[in-house]
Amino acid sequence: MEIDTMQRLIEGFKRFRDGEYPERIPLFQELATKQEPGTLFVTCSDSRVVPEFITQSEPGDMFVIRNAGNIIPSFGPHHGGVSATVEYAVAVLGVADIVVCGHSDCGAMTAIADGADLSTLPAVSSWLHHADAAKAINDAHVHSCKSGKVAGMVRENVIAQLANLRTHPSVALALSEGRVRLHGWVYDIGEGSIEAYDASSGRFVDLIDYPETDATALNLVS
Amino acid sequence: MEIDTMQRLIEGFKRFRDGEYPERIPLFQELATKQEPGTLFVTCSDSRVVPEFITQSEPGDMFVIRNAGNIIPSFGPHHGGVSATVEYAVAVLGVADIVVCGHSDCGAMTAIADGADLSTLPAVSSWLHHADAAKAINDAHVHSCKSGKVAGMVRENVIAQLANLRTHPSVALALSEGRVRLHGWVYDIGEGSIEAYDASSGRFVDLIDYPETDATALNLVS
Amino acid sequence: MEIDTMQRLIEGFKRFRDGEYPERIPLFQELATKQEPGTLFVTCSDSRVVPEFITQSEPGDMFVIRNAGNIIPSFGPHHGGVSATVEYAVAVLGVADIVVCGHSDCGAMTAIADGADLSTLPAVSSWLHHADAAKAINDAHVHSCKSGKVAGMVRENVIAQLANLRTHPSVALALSEGRVRLHGWVYDIGEGSIEAYDASSGRFVDLIDYPETDATALNLVS
Amino acid sequence: MEIDTMQRLIEGFKRFRDGEYPERIPLFQELATKQEPGTLFVTCSDSRVVPEFITQSEPGDMFVIRNAGNIIPSFGPHHGGVSATVEYAVAVLGVADIVVCGHSDCGAMTAIADGADLSTLPAVSSWLHHADAAKAINDAHVHSCKSGKVAGMVRENVIAQLANLRTHPSVALALSEGRVRLHGWVYDIGEGSIEAYDASSGRFVDLIDYPETDATALNLVS
Amino acid sequence: MEIDTMQRLIEGFKRFRDGEYPERIPLFQELATKQEPGTLFVTCSDSRVVPEFITQSEPGDMFVIRNAGNIIPSFGPHHGGVSATVEYAVAVLGVADIVVCGHSDCGAMTAIADGADLSTLPAVSSWLHHADAAKAINDAHVHSCKSGKVAGMVRENVIAQLANLRTHPSVALALSEGRVRLHGWVYDIGEGSIEAYDASSGRFVDLIDYPETDATALNLVS
Amino acid sequence: MEIDTMQRLIEGFKRFRDGEYPERIPLFQELATKQEPGTLFVTCSDSRVVPEFITQSEPGDMFVIRNAGNIIPSFGPHHGGVSATVEYAVAVLGVADIVVCGHSDCGAMTAIADGADLSTLPAVSSWLHHADAAKAINDAHVHSCKSGKVAGMVRENVIAQLANLRTHPSVALALSEGRVRLHGWVYDIGEGSIEAYDASSGRFVDLIDYPETDATALNLVS
Ligand SMILES: [Zn+2]
Ligand SMILES: [Zn+2]
Ligand SMILES: [Zn+2]
Ligand SMILES: [Zn+2]
Ligand SMILES: [Zn+2]
Ligand SMILES: [Zn+2]
Repeated sequence: MEIDTMQRLIEGFKRFRDGEYPERIPLFQELATKQEPGTLFVTCSDSRVVPEFITQSEPGDMFVIRNAGNIIPSFGPHHGGVSATVEYAVAVLGVADIVVCGHSDCGAMTAIADGADLSTLPAVSSWLHHADAAKAINDAHVHSCKSGKVAGMVRENVIAQLANLRTHPSVALALSEGRVRLHGWVYDIGEGSIEAYDASSGRFVDLIDYPETDATALNLVS
Repeated sequence: MEIDTMQRLIEGFKRFRDGEYPERIPLFQELATKQEPGTLFVTCSDSRVVPEFITQSEPGDMFVIRNAGNIIPSFGPHHGGVSATVEYAVAVLGVADIVVCGHSDCGAMTAIADGADLSTLPAVSSWLHHADAAKAINDAHVHSCKSGKVAGMVRENVIAQLANLRTHPSVALALSEGRVRLHGWVYDIGEGSIEAYDASSGRFVDLIDYPETDATALNLVS
Repeated sequence: MEIDTMQRLIEGFKRFRDGEYPERIPLFQELATKQEPGTLFVTCSDSRVVPEFITQSEPGDMFVIRNAGNIIPSFGPHHGGVSATVEYAVAVLGVADIVVCGHSDCGAMTAIADGADLSTLPAVSSWLHHADAAKAINDAHVHSCKSGKVAGMVRENVIAQLANLRTHPSVALALSEGRVRLHGWVYDIGEGSIEAYDASSGRFVDLIDYPETDATALNLVS
Repeated sequence: MEIDTMQRLIEGFKRFRDGEYPERIPLFQELATKQEPGTLFVTCSDSRVVPEFITQSEPGDMFVIRNAGNIIPSFGPHHGGVSATVEYAVAVLGVADIVVCGHSDCGAMTAIADGADLSTLPAVSSWLHHADAAKAINDAHVHSCKSGKVAGMVRENVIAQLANLRTHPSVALALSEGRVRLHGWVYDIGEGSIEAYDASSGRFVDLIDYPETDATALNLVS
Repeated sequence: MEIDTMQRLIEGFKRFRDGEYPERIPLFQELATKQEPGTLFVTCSDSRVVPEFITQSEPGDMFVIRNAGNIIPSFGPHHGGVSATVEYAVAVLGVADIVVCGHSDCGAMTAIADGADLSTLPAVSSWLHHADAAKAINDAHVHSCKSGKVAGMVRENVIAQLANLRTHPSVALALSEGRVRLHGWVYDIGEGSIEAYDASSGRFVDLIDYPETDATALNLVS
Repeated sequence: MEIDTMQRLIEGFKRFRDGEYPERIPLFQELATKQEPGTLFVTCSDSRVVPEFITQSEPGDMFVIRNAGNIIPSFGPHHGGVSATVEYAVAVLGVADIVVCGHSDCGAMTAIADGADLSTLPAVSSWLHHADAAKAINDAHVHSCKSGKVAGMVRENVIAQLANLRTHPSVALALSEGRVRLHGWVYDIGEGSIEAYDASSGRFVDLIDYPETDATALNLVS
């Protein structure tokens, strides 16, 4: 059965190699020696969230960070992989937009919202503390049901990670110079929809209805 | 121009929503409340490396970690995002395969191979120390040209990250019980090809020619 | 000569004990077992900046953090003294206002603005990285003179520390519930004046002229 | 009500600006461009402990560190704000005396002595571990009452922070050259009194009765 | 009685000085200005495990690391004493062999195997997390008795520390160049015997019967 | 040649097994299930410094920590192996004496005294910062020759590590209760002699002449 997983992956790669690749040889040859992505897309490692698929992006379009919970630790003296990758995307590649994209049914956010016992998962437990600000706010709200609490956690987490993002020197500089815009999205897997955080109203709105919505001007008191 | 980046992304999402999504409603409804990925795929944030595209995977197939340099810090008391995400993938989701996938023309590996001055990129500089073992080995080799040195660095980095991966308790346990297999890949952007690390010979071979190749049984002295 | 320093301190304490203390016995007896400060005041350790003196506050009025550069590290897994003290002030004492107060001629900010060699001061050098976002922005501005660059650094640092402050869970929660307001001040030692950061315009204004000015609603793009 | 807190602060600043400042214009103009404090004063953030007031010091006299519990982490590879500020005070400003001043009814020391549940205050909980040595010693003593245990904790903490202080290179060097003296004080808020740690006897004595008392020559076995 | 401990030590030193030393003056004079040890020996601090005694080594033969549990943290950005000492032994002294030697009745391994409450030993508790991979594997095995579980833990710990060792750049480089060999030993105090880890079979065998056994070629799936 | 190193070790073990072990069977059988060492001995990993040999100790007598430079990091929130091992020795085993033993021609202390370029040895470089206090003091002294500077560094390092040791809660508690005594030694490899730090005079004296010398009562100003 395990064989199947890898067989399927390798069969997929053969289809890519025999189908998609030949159709894009000029693109791939151009990309062979340079990338100029316009966007940094930060999302969860969740297998159901495929950023290039849901945005129908081509190779070369988006620089992507993926980890459990689409978390961006705030800037500090102990630089981890997210800090390094944000720094590279903004200071070296000069991306114009940063999207922080959470999603429905997120395992990480569910664990936080449920107050799950994470004692056997010490690394997960430690990592999710980067969402403590979101948790504090979400826990203080009244939720009518458990799934509402998870949904709230997903949204508060996106907002909290945007606040963390602003502490990174490369981002703070680019924001001060108007070179980058921030976006906070929540992708619904079952519905195929995206809500975007509207910083001016402090609310999430449908991305298709409000394509200009962004989170650049953080307004925490609506 | 910046507007175009996001406009394109949002246009892409509309195509997804109006095209891809309706075709897969049963899949997405099933995925709405659970994921059962068979593979953990760790690759670079590079915009040219789209793991689901090159393996033609569907949503739900692969749990994905992406950061600059496809780095997996070894396990230690200070858990970062990669450690947490590996722990979640192996201990909670029970993935059967872990692929560490480097790629040609990697900016992170080029910076290391070239000994680039990273003083203005402190987070990148710090993060790339997790590839110090690979750098030490690659620097000790004779390289006929600069691109050969980068290519060597990409390969040594994949091997070094596999060694780091083995220090994670969830991985060590799964390996000891034969529940997980490790794979070390290098994807060539321009060629559309993949080489896989063959642990028994200590060499990289063409994945299509040798689809059974894996890196589970680490043999550092061939 | 050193004796004089302590002699003066102890003489001062005698004057307090024989003069100020007897005048305030009811206050001190009330304070003996409880404090209810309304404000958390974060300022530099600089000997010329005496927060209670410049605000003519009484004992019991202000909870005070003082360190080199009035720095507030962003929230992360390695909690230091500032994080702990902010947490105590907001979550336990329930302060209603937080003032981050920089000052003219700040040694810490001058060292950053001048790019001083701090190799013999490793702890100072490390600590000042918490002002990297401010430094990046200030360095990108054109300054007509050296003192203008220091003054700019002092101001950008106040703004950056306010961004760091927002990543602390206790602060983020209190902000979301409207329980706390933020203030960014710069005190001029020679002039005896205070400028306050006006978040709506992104400018510093005279505190006496605009006593309602605050930094709660962060607006980074004016 | 919250308005009142800030109004009072700003009213206080106006009184300073219209009263205290004009009386000291020559002092403030001299201070505008330099400071030469003789003392580094480390005390708690507690609103009831105003170091310049209880020593009747003038602006420019004392370099001040304030945090919850007047804690000085020992020197190590992860430099925090206290280490940086001590380094600046001793190595750059060349202070001749360092006073570590605890106080009665300290919230931080009470939490330790009482074994308070700090699970909702993770940063406080972590920070107070820097007083573990003091806690171990105080817990081993027999205390007749709860307030006696807190008082003991306050005193042991001052002694422990003096031991931590000695591990800082700048302090160790200055001590070895006789350039700095250490002082351990406990300020009683209700009584308006100060006790000083006498290193030769290992006891706290009344500062006014024994103004020469100091903690420079640490004698841990009396 | 405490006096006796030191008296015995000093009496021992006198015997060394009057007996062993004069017999080896040429050796000690040669060693006075240089060392060329062939082996790095990593073992527990346990008083019953004397590496030079059980191997009948002379001064100058073995570079020795000793800590509770013969632990070698994996390589990471926060370098501790073991990392530094390994680096010095391999990169500067050029040792040809590294022995990681556990032992019977190890207090550290017993604490892990028993799931002892280490809440009053925070540093021990934290340190032993470097054996989490070994613990995970050993806990998953069925043990017929408590001492069997401890014995299993001792063995798994040796294997896990060898995996950690491979992440160190100096070791990875030396392994890749065939300049160093790894050895995993378990010393039985009561029996006076040593078992060695045979990487090819994944088993521990008697060292005297199989003196060529080594752990260089790590084969985790036998 | 590498074979010889291990062959010699294994030959040595055979001599132990056939000679020393049978002579001590009763001791080893008693030791098989418990240890009661009276002393914690902290010394350098240097192959020429064999603590049990120079003190002619038997198995079971001394709990031993060995690392490059006989360094004891001060107590802090990030517990390493030395902190854990000290904690175990003092709090669990209840050792009565702690010896910190430096030695002549120490490679670590020579690197510090010479200001050696350690850029290719990052872990060593980082570790040796725990001797910064000693370095600061030694650098401030006038040394007639290079070897005098190294000898001074060795001595100042022993004193500095004793100061670090006092910050550990287990040690501070044991000192306060008179349950442990501290000793600072310097072993001369070529001479076979030991000097001990006399805390009352602040000087090192010959251990054989002054066997009662100890470092318990730290007196930094003689
Ligand atoms: Zn998720
Ligand atoms: Zn890359
Ligand atoms: Zn300042
Ligand atoms: Zn207090
Ligand atoms: Zn042991
Ligand atoms: Zn040494």
